[in-house]
Amino acid sequence: LMEAICDNGPVNGTASHAGTSGEENRFTFSPEPSVEDIRRMQAEFTDERDWNKFHQPRNLLLAMVGEVGEVSELFQWKGEVAEGLPDWSDSEREQLAHELSDVFIYLVELAEKCRVDLPQAVLRKMALNRLKYPASKVHGSAKKYTEYKD
Amino acid sequence: LMEAICDNGPVNGTASHAGTSGEENRFTFSPEPSVEDIRRMQAEFTDERDWNKFHQPRNLLLAMVGEVGEVSELFQWKGEVAEGLPDWSDSEREQLAHELSDVFIYLVELAEKCRVDLPQAVLRKMALNRLKYPASKVHGSAKKYTEYKD
Amino acid sequence: LMEAICDNGPVNGTASHAGTSGEENRFTFSPEPSVEDIRRMQAEFTDERDWNKFHQPRNLLLAMVGEVGEVSELFQWKGEVAEGLPDWSDSEREQLAHELSDVFIYLVELAEKCRVDLPQAVLRKMALNRLKYPASKVHGSAKKYTEYKD
Amino acid sequence: LMEAICDNGPVNGTASHAGTSGEENRFTFSPEPSVEDIRRMQAEFTDERDWNKFHQPRNLLLAMVGEVGEVSELFQWKGEVAEGLPDWSDSEREQLAHELSDVFIYLVELAEKCRVDLPQAVLRKMALNRLKYPASKVHGSAKKYTEYKD
Repeated sequence: LMEAICDNGPVNGTASHAGTSGEENRFTFSPEPSVEDIRRMQAEFTDERDWNKFHQPRNLLLAMVGEVGEVSELFQWKGEVAEGLPDWSDSEREQLAHELSDVFIYLVELAEKCRVDLPQAVLRKMALNRLKYPASKVHGSAKKYTEYKD
Repeated sequence: LMEAICDNGPVNGTASHAGTSGEENRFTFSPEPSVEDIRRMQAEFTDERDWNKFHQPRNLLLAMVGEVGEVSELFQWKGEVAEGLPDWSDSEREQLAHELSDVFIYLVELAEKCRVDLPQAVLRKMALNRLKYPASKVHGSAKKYTEYKD
Repeated sequence: LMEAICDNGPVNGTASHAGTSGEENRFTFSPEPSVEDIRRMQAEFTDERDWNKFHQPRNLLLAMVGEVGEVSELFQWKGEVAEGLPDWSDSEREQLAHELSDVFIYLVELAEKCRVDLPQAVLRKMALNRLKYPASKVHGSAKKYTEYKD
Repeated sequence: LMEAICDNGPVNGTASHAGTSGEENRFTFSPEPSVEDIRRMQAEFTDERDWNKFHQPRNLLLAMVGEVGEVSELFQWKGEVAEGLPDWSDSEREQLAHELSDVFIYLVELAEKCRVDLPQAVLRKMALNRLKYPASKVHGSAKKYTEYKD
């Protein structure tokens, strides 16, 4: 399965296909693996090593905090960083890809061990965000939603 | 699209279908939305509000740190927490689902703005993890991989 | 100065002097260096290396997040940890002392660069905490203060 | 004691007294309370509420992560922030003072519960930092110390 998925998409994401809107050439992710694929592969990884006894919720949370710390270390002395990381070396980009992946892997396993259906939870949260920050009211402003309430 | 996706799966994840292995009844995520679906929906959300100017990489990173802090607050006074969160109220579980989602949303947008193809990056990192921690050597131990090197 | 301060106290803290109350033998910190001593020494360190250009507030904040991540890594696979860390090796304790110190050093420098008088700010916050959580109302409970309001 | 300490210093830090060097007018912290004063006051606060049972090391660590998240939220949408926070309102500054204080309070209590003499640990770590980053070699550069090794 792993190999099948690995061959399925380009390594570095894609610009979307020729298009009809301002979206063309926008960076997109590969369609696979899905969040559930990642959960299953990580569960297999943990099972094979008999590591479930170490992967209790608070252990996974602290592991995720550690990985967020490693992402932060990559950004800490850089001052403002522009979209696309124009001044970063290939090595720094690959290191960032690794650390963001570590955050993701622990997030997925934490959600699993807490019985949170992460993909569906995101849909519910996004729906709440649209209600909290109506586009017509907050256009271009970072003010907190409370300031927009009637 | 949102509604279509919302109708696509059960809200609270699924136990896998009657099965042939020890995996039966194991908690799984819904198959949708994909990581790319989440990226696209969040990009639309940000575009509609004209918020891209605020969503620079370091801003998104700090926002993610803030959300990791909110997850931590849910766990901070609980002592050890067992898999499945047996003593948590429905309200606490929903709050956790929201905060994990917020971490995920900012992680996805951070990866996008850094041009990291997050799903594929996870595959590469998982392949590295399998090399670093061979199942035959680390079975049941949390020692760091360096201690297993020949 | 550094050497004078270094000779001033025991390396590993002190149990308070024979006493009259349940406080005897309680672990205490050395009286020095003060928070201001630490600020001044770190300012000298930064000045001598011409690093102030890198030590802008958000850089220092991300550096602090990175160090909090390193503290978390020391605790991540341990499950519940008792007061005094009874099962930790001397090497792990020294590593923890280093990482907690790194958090402290960046916290102090962040406060300085933000013009926050950290020792006095702590006094104000502690006074607020006493008002929010009256001892007579919250004895033995971790409930949030809002639940104690009349 | 609390009141005595509160009266001891100006609320907002001090510029150092007229001086003989480039240090004049540099922001400094108030000389009190000491780190040990803060430890003792927080220990009394915790004792009076019978909260030691909640203040185990990992609980305090997660609480500190939560407070670091709250500091991050104050900086997250601001882009680059200059030394002294020139564009921040008084209310934002006071909020920052509160959140930095919360990080400090939990850091101090975490160190105490781990039997780390925090002030002395900082001295040892600063001595190591001077060895790792010799001023003569790293002047003006943020490169990692490994790159300076002969």
